[in-house]
Amino acid sequence: MPKPIAGPEIERLIQLLARLPGLGPRSARRAALQLVKRREQLLRPLAEAMTVAAEEVRLCSNCGNIDTRDPCTICTDPNRDTAVVIVVEDVSDLWALERAKALNARYHVLGGVLSPLDGVGPDDLTVARLVERVAEGGIEELVIAVNATVEGQTTAHYIIDQLADLPVRITRLAHGVPVGGELDYLDEGTLLAAMRTRTRI
Amino acid sequence: MPKPIAGPEIERLIQLLARLPGLGPRSARRAALQLVKRREQLLRPLAEAMTVAAEEVRLCSNCGNIDTRDPCTICTDPNRDTAVVIVVEDVSDLWALERAKALNARYHVLGGVLSPLDGVGPDDLTVARLVERVAEGGIEELVIAVNATVEGQTTAHYIIDQLADLPVRITRLAHGVPVGGELDYLDEGTLLAAMRTRTRI
Repeated sequence: MPKPIAGPEIERLIQLLARLPGLGPRSARRAALQLVKRREQLLRPLAEAMTVAAEEVRLCSNCGNIDTRDPCTICTDPNRDTAVVIVVEDVSDLWALERAKALNARYHVLGGVLSPLDGVGPDDLTVARLVERVAEGGIEELVIAVNATVEGQTTAHYIIDQLADLPVRITRLAHGVPVGGELDYLDEGTLLAAMRTRTRI
Repeated sequence: MPKPIAGPEIERLIQLLARLPGLGPRSARRAALQLVKRREQLLRPLAEAMTVAAEEVRLCSNCGNIDTRDPCTICTDPNRDTAVVIVVEDVSDLWALERAKALNARYHVLGGVLSPLDGVGPDDLTVARLVERVAEGGIEELVIAVNATVEGQTTAHYIIDQLADLPVRITRLAHGVPVGGELDYLDEGTLLAAMRTRTRI
């Protein structure tokens, strides 16, 4: 057992920081030291931002996005196309599509994908609420933007089944060569899909 | 200008997290999402640990270490050799030496190195307090463990000058081949030092 070199408060700060994705034990120590050195510019503001987030962040009851408002900023944005809803697995996917300015529409965050092995069934996702939203009317197109994994595709099929009786156009993201990608490094499935859906230039 | 995708509270959390060493904009977003998802296990405890640190962490008035106590945990540890003081540039160096269990002694944290170009002079470091500690008596050896850089060595010489009239043995860390290191990748200065101070096996 190592000797104590600082009070338990600092040790605890380091241990908690080390649990953030992207920070290991060494970088957690560096981060803790930086925080303590920049108390007024960084440590105190971050402590306050986290306290506010812990108190006020919630899931949007409409779309499953996280925000300090419910309904969330996106669901209440008057400048978005309300007829199109993009279905994503996770909030991080929503953020990625927003960064890409992919489509000025609304979202539906599933909160995961169907995965029997991990014990994730339909009731663990927000599929029922999605069906409800479509049934309420006003949504003309649903863009299924789940990951191109087996679980993602299974989830997509399940959603399509659930929506079979409702008059909504269902689309999915195109498969193809990533922009800036090299053919040589791509898997055969992607190349085949890209060739089949080739477009005229 | 991008559209708002979440309330300003979450944006602010991401921006502050991105200022931690080791986290860029992308990993700050991932960290923020992880924090919000693990509110009770991670976000709230971390917010509390940071608030405590912001309120209670201070510099040890004896040695310059950071701690929630003053004098710090190391200065008040009764199981350390009080006759030896290790002089380091920064708290991170203190932590590194403690992890290595290098010597069961006390420390003196300079808070930087002399660097005229960056406007760091003797008064910006804790050299005066170090001279005071040695003058108070009881310290038999001072291990200068500053970095082996030009600024570090300049600082070491300055400290030695300041202590010229005091009866204390001054030592420094050995130069040599890092354990596990390959000769081929080492600079000539290190190899020369390692050869000159070679030891009998």
